Amino acid sequence: MTGQWEDAFVGAIEAGGTKFVCATGTGPHDLARATFRTGDDPAQVLPMVTAWLAEQQRQRGTLRAIGVASFGPVDLDRSSPTYGYITSTPKPGWRNTDIVGPLRKAFPGIAVGFDTDVSGATLGEQHWGNGQGLTDFVYITIGTGIGAGAMAGGQLVHGLVHPEMGHMMLPRVPGDEFAGVCPFHGACWEGLCAGPALLKRTGMPAEQLPPDHEAWALEAQYIAYALANLVCVLSPQRIILGGSVRKAGRLGQERLFEMIRAKVQEALNGYVVSPALAGEIDRHVVPPLLGDDAGICGAIALAQEAWRVA
Amino acid sequence: MTGQWEDAFVGAIEAGGTKFVCATGTGPHDLARATFRTGDDPAQVLPMVTAWLAEQQRQRGTLRAIGVASFGPVDLDRSSPTYGYITSTPKPGWRNTDIVGPLRKAFPGIAVGFDTDVSGATLGEQHWGNGQGLTDFVYITIGTGIGAGAMAGGQLVHGLVHPEMGHMMLPRVPGDEFAGVCPFHGACWEGLCAGPALLKRTGMPAEQLPPDHEAWALEAQYIAYALANLVCVLSPQRIILGGSVRKAGRLGQERLFEMIRAKVQEALNGYVVSPALAGEIDRHVVPPLLGDDAGICGAIALAQEAWRVA
Repeated sequence: MTGQWEDAFVGAIEAGGTKFVCATGTGPHDLARATFRTGDDPAQVLPMVTAWLAEQQRQRGTLRAIGVASFGPVDLDRSSPTYGYITSTPKPGWRNTDIVGPLRKAFPGIAVGFDTDVSGATLGEQHWGNGQGLTDFVYITIGTGIGAGAMAGGQLVHGLVHPEMGHMMLPRVPGDEFAGVCPFHGACWEGLCAGPALLKRTGMPAEQLPPDHEAWALEAQYIAYALANLVCVLSPQRIILGGSVRKAGRLGQERLFEMIRAKVQEALNGYVVSPALAGEIDRHVVPPLLGDDAGICGAIALAQEAWRVA
Repeated sequence: MTGQWEDAFVGAIEAGGTKFVCATGTGPHDLARATFRTGDDPAQVLPMVTAWLAEQQRQRGTLRAIGVASFGPVDLDRSSPTYGYITSTPKPGWRNTDIVGPLRKAFPGIAVGFDTDVSGATLGEQHWGNGQGLTDFVYITIGTGIGAGAMAGGQLVHGLVHPEMGHMMLPRVPGDEFAGVCPFHGACWEGLCAGPALLKRTGMPAEQLPPDHEAWALEAQYIAYALANLVCVLSPQRIILGGSVRKAGRLGQERLFEMIRAKVQEALNGYVVSPALAGEIDRHVVPPLLGDDAGICGAIALAQEAWRVA
C-alpha cells in the first residue's frame, strides 16, 4: 500500500526529559528503535539522534518525513523565529534549544512534524489506539508531571501556545491540607496528583503505596475533579488516561480507574446527560491502547501527517 | 455582493429562556427584529415565530436559511431522532421540544442552522466582533446562568454533547463558606458567580451592589480561576466575557475586568508564557464587541453557515 500516507516510512523522535526514544517505521507494529539519554547538553544528543536516523535511512530506505513529539514548553508558531524550539524549560541545558533546525540541516528538504509529547501521543492514540474513529477526545499522562493533548473536531487543539491542562486548579477535599508541589501553583492538579506529589504526600513512590492507603482515595478524587472539568469544557467523546501513576502499583490500574469513574459521575451528578457518562463510563475513561508506546507512535503519526501535507 | 455567503439574507432566532428574539437580515448593521415571550407553551410561541419570519420573507425577500441559537440542553447530533430538540431543560413546558422541525415544515427545503445560544454568540463574535481573525477563543456569558462556547482550530467545539463550562469546579477562596446555588453542583462556577448566586450571597442584584462590597472581589477571583483553567485547557487566543453580570452595575465593567485580569495573571503565576497573558492582557480578556446582540447575530451567522454548506 505504498502511496497511502498512513503507511509512509518515516523517522520519529519522542523527546523526553530523561531520554530520547527514536524510531523508524510505518506504525506500532513496525518500529526499529534506539534510545539516548537526554542529559544536559543538546549538542551531544542531537547529533547522535540524526546519525542514527541517517544510518536507518541507509539500511531501511528513504525517510519520507520526521516527527518530533517533544517535552516543553515548545514554540509551535510557524511564523515565529523560534518555531521548532524547546523554549522556557527549567531543564538544565535545554532552554531555547532548536530541535527542528538540526533535523532539517541533516536531512535537507525533509518534512518535519513537530508538536508537544502529549499532542503526539493524542495523535498516536487516534491513529492506532483508543482514539480511533473519534473527533473529540483527550489524552492525559500522569507521571513526573501531568500533561494532556486534546482533539476537537478532528484536529489537535493548539491555540495561543498549547494546552497545559496539568495546571488546572481544583476544589480541595475538605480536611486535605497538603500544600502541593507545583513550583508555580502549589496545589494545582499536577501539584496534587503527579508522581512527585504522591511521593511528598506519603513518603513512598506510587508503585509502593499500599492499596488501602488514603492517598489513593485523594488521588482518585482530584483526578475525577479534573476529568469532570474537562467534560464541562471540551465535552470529549472519550478520556484516555496514561502515564505511570495510572498503573497504580499495588492498588492496580483497574481498581484506580473504577474509583475515578465513580467519582467523575459523582462530581457531574447527572448534569451532562449521555450514556457515555452513565452506564458506558467504563468505555469513556480508559487507559491508552498503545500503553507506553503512545508517545513514539505519536511521533510516527506526526511525521506521517507532515508528509501528507508537504 | 450577492453570492457571498457572509452577506446572505437569512432568518435568525435567539431562543432564550425569557424571550425569543427573531430577526432577518445579513449582519449586525442590517437587522429587522421582533421579540416574543418564551412562556411555557412552545405551541404558542413557535407559530408566532414562523408567522413573523414568513411575513418578513414576503416583505424583504427570500430567506436563504434560518439559524437558531437556543437555550439548552439541545440535541446537536444529526444522526439522532431528536436532533434539533431542546432536551432535558428544567424550564416548564419546554422539555423535549422540537425546534428545527416546525421551521422545516413552515419553510420547506430551507437550510436550518441549529446550535446552543453560546455557540451562536461565539460564531457571531467571530464574524463581526472580538473574535474576528481568531481561530481559538472562548465566548462566555454570565447572567442567570453561566454558559460558554469555544472555537478551536477555527471550528466550534461540540464533542460528545456540547460544552457546559459554567459547571466547572473551582478552588474555594479560604474563609468563603457560601454553599453556592447550583442545584446539581452547589458551588460550581455558575453556583458561585451567576446572577442568582450574587443575589443569594448579598441579598442584592448585581446592578445594585456597592462598588466596595466584598462580593465583587470574590466574584472577580472565582471568574479568574475559571478563566485560568480555560487558558490551561484550551489555550485561547482571546476570552470574550459577556452577559449581564460582567457589566458590574455600580462597580463598572472596566473596573471588574481590571480585577479579573489581575487575578488571572496571579492564578497563572507566569507559567504560560505569552505577551497575551502579560502586558497585553487587556486585549486578551475583553467584553463582546457585539454586546447584547452577540446572540442574535450568532443566529444570523449560524444561518449563513447553514446556507454555505447546504
